Amino acid sequence: MIRVGIAAYGIVPFSKEDKKIENLLMDSVAELFVKNPEIDKRDIDGVMVSTNSNSKYLGPIVAEMSGIQPKASVSIENLCSSGTNAIVSAYSYIASGLADMVLVTGAERFDSPGRVLDWDDSRGEFKQPVFWASLFTKSYKNQFSISEEDLAVVSVKNHKQAKNNPNALSGRIFSVKDVLSSKQVTEDLRLLDCSRLCTGSASVILASKDVMENFSTEPIWITGIGQKTTSAGFTKNNSFYSIKSAKDASNTALKMAKKDVTDIDAVELHDAFSVCEPMALESMGFSKNGKSIKLIKELHQTDNFKVNPRGGLMGAGHPLGATGIAQTIEIVQQLQERSGARQIDDVKAGLVHNMSAAATSSTVLVLEK
Amino acid sequence: MIRVGIAAYGIVPFSKEDKKIENLLMDSVAELFVKNPEIDKRDIDGVMVSTNSNSKYLGPIVAEMSGIQPKASVSIENLCSSGTNAIVSAYSYIASGLADMVLVTGAERFDSPGRVLDWDDSRGEFKQPVFWASLFTKSYKNQFSISEEDLAVVSVKNHKQAKNNPNALSGRIFSVKDVLSSKQVTEDLRLLDCSRLCTGSASVILASKDVMENFSTEPIWITGIGQKTTSAGFTKNNSFYSIKSAKDASNTALKMAKKDVTDIDAVELHDAFSVCEPMALESMGFSKNGKSIKLIKELHQTDNFKVNPRGGLMGAGHPLGATGIAQTIEIVQQLQERSGARQIDDVKAGLVHNMSAAATSSTVLVLEK
Repeated sequence: MIRVGIAAYGIVPFSKEDKKIENLLMDSVAELFVKNPEIDKRDIDGVMVSTNSNSKYLGPIVAEMSGIQPKASVSIENLCSSGTNAIVSAYSYIASGLADMVLVTGAERFDSPGRVLDWDDSRGEFKQPVFWASLFTKSYKNQFSISEEDLAVVSVKNHKQAKNNPNALSGRIFSVKDVLSSKQVTEDLRLLDCSRLCTGSASVILASKDVMENFSTEPIWITGIGQKTTSAGFTKNNSFYSIKSAKDASNTALKMAKKDVTDIDAVELHDAFSVCEPMALESMGFSKNGKSIKLIKELHQTDNFKVNPRGGLMGAGHPLGATGIAQTIEIVQQLQERSGARQIDDVKAGLVHNMSAAATSSTVLVLEK
Repeated sequence: MIRVGIAAYGIVPFSKEDKKIENLLMDSVAELFVKNPEIDKRDIDGVMVSTNSNSKYLGPIVAEMSGIQPKASVSIENLCSSGTNAIVSAYSYIASGLADMVLVTGAERFDSPGRVLDWDDSRGEFKQPVFWASLFTKSYKNQFSISEEDLAVVSVKNHKQAKNNPNALSGRIFSVKDVLSSKQVTEDLRLLDCSRLCTGSASVILASKDVMENFSTEPIWITGIGQKTTSAGFTKNNSFYSIKSAKDASNTALKMAKKDVTDIDAVELHDAFSVCEPMALESMGFSKNGKSIKLIKELHQTDNFKVNPRGGLMGAGHPLGATGIAQTIEIVQQLQERSGARQIDDVKAGLVHNMSAAATSSTVLVLEK
């Protein structure tokens, strides 16, 4: 099997900017090439675009705009987890020998057509994600006797961590009281329990071990990949207080990497809403069921950035097609000790969890030095 | 390297039907499972959807509607060559060891948003494909002293061949005179020189060699894959009477398969317009430049179905996301001697050429028994 690593990355600040998708994609692609002048564009034999935009043929468009003439060029969509799915696709092209070096670029506009899944009639008249997030929240709180105050700590922690991320949408710090007094969106959700859709762009280059050896930057390897799709419709979830797709995907990824969850030093997980963080932590085995609020509070009190160091989706913002790539870049930076004020000590292995549509599918990556 | 083959296929008649994309995808998926009862859906660990539809999350939706709970599920778009790109993606998942069996399903509606590439301002005010096809036609005719009558034979041959394909959109036979008296669309194009966008659906299952051994059907192997993206914008083509993307992609695919072009017994190529057939044949080395009209006429006169046996895009219709998959199914059927009245004698190796956006990108597959 050909070993695959992340050779370079480019990311720009998330915003509410109104900009064409092609130009957005190019923002982080351009940043990547400026920061990595040793990469010869003639060596790039794949361009994979992650987005929910309705624009077509974005792979070849990004290739042309970047001055690349690759073999493969495609767009990949899987709602909120398009980013990690594009990374997995690039990995498979390289690991199978079809390509040696692939540019993966993801971007989204704040008004993405991926923000609501119209198909899912199981949500009744309520197709916005706040609907399923409310049911998850109510269910999780009831099952484990968790209070609104407990869950508010997720938002407080992630906004605090985002304050140390120069690319985050949010630059503000909130208290538990701020979260609890923010606008009530549904019976179980406050505005500050929700991540915000935004405009963003993030890019990485994946390369085979042979190609990686030509670069001066420290290689970060993708050692584990796990994916699981349980359904598309929300009500087909078999539990509303745990995430089967995250459990299965992380088991597969950790097994492939020959790692235990206790070996993971940094985690980027898909906190689309406050409740998603404890649910994902528990489903992936970082804590027993119903016990992760304790872990989250401890991390927060000790300023330990282990979980969602860049601020997660809640603090950094959620530009769908860019999110999984931005999460991956964060773990790469943590492994390379380039995370500045949000650096976690002694990171040897990190994990990315990216999911879609009411947790009906998850992708998990394990990254190592 | 894990060997990858095509284990099963499903296809339904192309039409002008007005139907939801989810249901269209399911048409050929259902056909596939009805025809292949020995396939256990629990063994399918990937679902890849090929379409230009703006609907999101179609991978998980098809999975749920089919009763599959795969690992990976994504949508893949690259305009008219989305189908072969999805097949290549599935191949890479299996060859890299991430999956053992992947369902690839492609569908399109007649009114697909992929029918015009709005981004390509290099086409001036003329964004419809007839624009670039006209320039290709004028250029090819001038370069090689080819007449309108000569090119009309492509349409006559492919409609004749489609008459033997029960899934083809066209059921009519035309003479050279019919083509030349059909509506003049541009100075260089008649209506019968153009393939027609339509509604269609086609599915295949790819599997690893180990999985293939469990099935009773004759395995067909994907032995060569080649892809090339030269640009996205039409005017960046370096020639208007040959196709660099097809040349590069077929060279790569044939090299990977350790085959010469003379070893290929059946070809499905991307005849979006009459002129595309000789251009693709010449660029891929089936004939010297400017000489393939002679070959096409010979094939037509001798009722040899070697090139575009199912009738090509011109005869079968062009449902963008389904086209590359339908082309691949045709070669599988030819290799398995299941093509009925359109069967080519003694097919040992076949080639699929699928392209996008004024030939700016091509994907080529080599298939063998």
